[in-house]
Amino acid sequence: MALIVQKYGGTSVGSVERIKNVARRIAKWQNAGHQVVVVVSAMSGETNRLIGLAKEIQKNPDPRELDVVASTGEQVTIGLLSMALKAIGKKAKSYTGPQVRVLTDSAYTKARIREIDAHRIRNDLEEGNAVIVAGFQGCDEDGNITTLGRGGSDTSAVALAAALKADECLIFTDVDGIYTTDPRVVSDARRMDVVAFEEILEMASLGSKVLQIRSVEFAGKYKVPTRVLSSLTDPDIPVEQEANSGTLITFEEDPKMEKVVVSGIAFSRDEAKITLPHVPDIPGIAYKILGSIAEANIEVDMIVQNAAKNGLTDFSFTVNRNELDKAIAVIEKEVSPYLEEGGILSDASIAKISCVGIGMRSHAGVAAKMFKILAEENINIKMISTSEIRTSIIVDEKYMELAVRALHKAFGLDKAPSSME
Amino acid sequence: MALIVQKYGGTSVGSVERIKNVARRIAKWQNAGHQVVVVVSAMSGETNRLIGLAKEIQKNPDPRELDVVASTGEQVTIGLLSMALKAIGKKAKSYTGPQVRVLTDSAYTKARIREIDAHRIRNDLEEGNAVIVAGFQGCDEDGNITTLGRGGSDTSAVALAAALKADECLIFTDVDGIYTTDPRVVSDARRMDVVAFEEILEMASLGSKVLQIRSVEFAGKYKVPTRVLSSLTDPDIPVEQEANSGTLITFEEDPKMEKVVVSGIAFSRDEAKITLPHVPDIPGIAYKILGSIAEANIEVDMIVQNAAKNGLTDFSFTVNRNELDKAIAVIEKEVSPYLEEGGILSDASIAKISCVGIGMRSHAGVAAKMFKILAEENINIKMISTSEIRTSIIVDEKYMELAVRALHKAFGLDKAPSSME
Repeated sequence: MALIVQKYGGTSVGSVERIKNVARRIAKWQNAGHQVVVVVSAMSGETNRLIGLAKEIQKNPDPRELDVVASTGEQVTIGLLSMALKAIGKKAKSYTGPQVRVLTDSAYTKARIREIDAHRIRNDLEEGNAVIVAGFQGCDEDGNITTLGRGGSDTSAVALAAALKADECLIFTDVDGIYTTDPRVVSDARRMDVVAFEEILEMASLGSKVLQIRSVEFAGKYKVPTRVLSSLTDPDIPVEQEANSGTLITFEEDPKMEKVVVSGIAFSRDEAKITLPHVPDIPGIAYKILGSIAEANIEVDMIVQNAAKNGLTDFSFTVNRNELDKAIAVIEKEVSPYLEEGGILSDASIAKISCVGIGMRSHAGVAAKMFKILAEENINIKMISTSEIRTSIIVDEKYMELAVRALHKAFGLDKAPSSME
Repeated sequence: MALIVQKYGGTSVGSVERIKNVARRIAKWQNAGHQVVVVVSAMSGETNRLIGLAKEIQKNPDPRELDVVASTGEQVTIGLLSMALKAIGKKAKSYTGPQVRVLTDSAYTKARIREIDAHRIRNDLEEGNAVIVAGFQGCDEDGNITTLGRGGSDTSAVALAAALKADECLIFTDVDGIYTTDPRVVSDARRMDVVAFEEILEMASLGSKVLQIRSVEFAGKYKVPTRVLSSLTDPDIPVEQEANSGTLITFEEDPKMEKVVVSGIAFSRDEAKITLPHVPDIPGIAYKILGSIAEANIEVDMIVQNAAKNGLTDFSFTVNRNELDKAIAVIEKEVSPYLEEGGILSDASIAKISCVGIGMRSHAGVAAKMFKILAEENINIKMISTSEIRTSIIVDEKYMELAVRALHKAFGLDKAPSSME
């Protein structure tokens, strides 16, 4: 007997029929002798409906009150799912975030979980209940309702699994696992059976939206074995089969770990590049530029400063494409007066491509191989940034698909890794 | 400065526009220097939508889980109304029932309030907030979400007013007060400026549906001055005018009290009559009949047993019309074997008419006058039942409107009472 946390997103509980299917899936795991705790999102579309109502009332809804309104979506789902389980003869009990209690800080609309009281859930499990918990929500020390931000139900699930020391956390979603890259861009993209926590963390931060990044951080911190798998399969497929499907995120040097250097290729069109050519190469100039950007609450991703020539240097960085205009306005106001010449160059038609793999730790030359492959395709690299297990480059947006396909093939990601055969 | 509790029902908060109007009304009271606590229902239609979803999942929804689902309707309204107040520059803070905390018993879907912690609300009021509380809901000692049953928001409002020792509880609704009888039946029906608690209690129990009867009981127990008034007026009418509109429910022999014998005429088509003719007039026969009915959870309203003749008597009682078939089935099964002859007679085409007034305490002859008026209209009286401040009769349903109009006129209810002139 294992203790399993299962998470179902908005699409998986998007209709009465789908909720009934989820109940069947849960009952199957209970019937196989497992204790099941379930975390659910709001029915798809519901959170947007609620936020829409709020915006009709107040253009920028008060964050505390927005959380009061938005958290009702998950509360409806937990009640309905518990009923669906009772309707097929199973014991079930639902809890809102504040009831559990999922204690968070007071940062409304983007709260962070501090602790979870697992006591009550354990009692209910002992009594044979499936315990259904509302994702995305909690309360602060004063009992105010908080929400965790978009995708927060993933974090709720992993945090609950950590608090309960669950054997595994299953994230049921509308894809059947995590792929070496986006299958819509590369038809040869391959589902990974196992992926390292650090890899998924880099991919999530690079725009692969299968899991909320904070849930991955949580999983890493508490070493919660987490599996991403499909909720669109027949709910009655055998438990043993389902338990081995999807992609498992691991935290150890797992013997099952794929023996490859690059595990996946992530990419994103979300960024834009700003270049300040010929800025004076003096101490404090980077702070002058990036400090003003940070004060305007604009997040900076990649930063490159070239070697100086004649006391002048080129300074480039990327921001979210939505914030490009805002960033330029800040620089024109705060920084331009200190620049001697050159003005501001910007480019919103760029894409970021990243090769990710913990194998890169022990293998040099990934960056070099990456550049060679792109050179062979005549793709110019505009910026480069690396971490221990990741090499990212910026290219012209129009070359993105070509570059991703070439890299995916060159690093052998279209073939099952040898250790798995 | 007064502390005022205001309650707005589902129609009053049924759209974004109406919620904004409610906010303006509240702001007006705040601007006049009053502290305002507001209790709201779910937006009209929302509770039915949620219950409908639940019934699609489970034919007879689990009561605990139904309360989890149904209580979200009010939670949405409190958040939206707080935003609407903030949008016009007022301070506001919302609370769910469990947050306040409205402590109830554990009778899901029909819980009763045990106590309310007014501490938190008082602090928020001191800080200049309008405090917006979700009606209809609370939690039990274990923190399980409970609801108070249909119309429960009235009870939430009066209970909060009692806990806060509020100066007045204003029940805003889609009628402009309580009438001497239903204006749809009697065009001369007159809005009462003041009505005694006992009278409204009798009227509520007789089918006048302006207030939930439990809210009236609560108001009586804690002597909460409660006013029923319209939410459909211009939200910006002066506070002094609004404060004196509608109908005030009082608990003392108020000097403003109308000096009349009969204050109002209530009526109902909800009942049906069962007669067991010629039952043996022996001890225990009433228990035999009514005991079996009570065991089947059927509520009995009026009961009449005629004088015995030859050791036999006629026994009649009324039940809710919806339960007539069920009641007959019970009697056929449990009682018939003990009856010597006569069988079961039933009549679903009846109506109950009641004259209500605390003036009846000190005035004999109301019943006699009632019978005389009906005799003059050739209306036969089928059953009679009286209490200290009420006389009820059963007549053929087809005579109901005629009887109500005749009584309303004969007791002078179409004219403003002399003490008010």
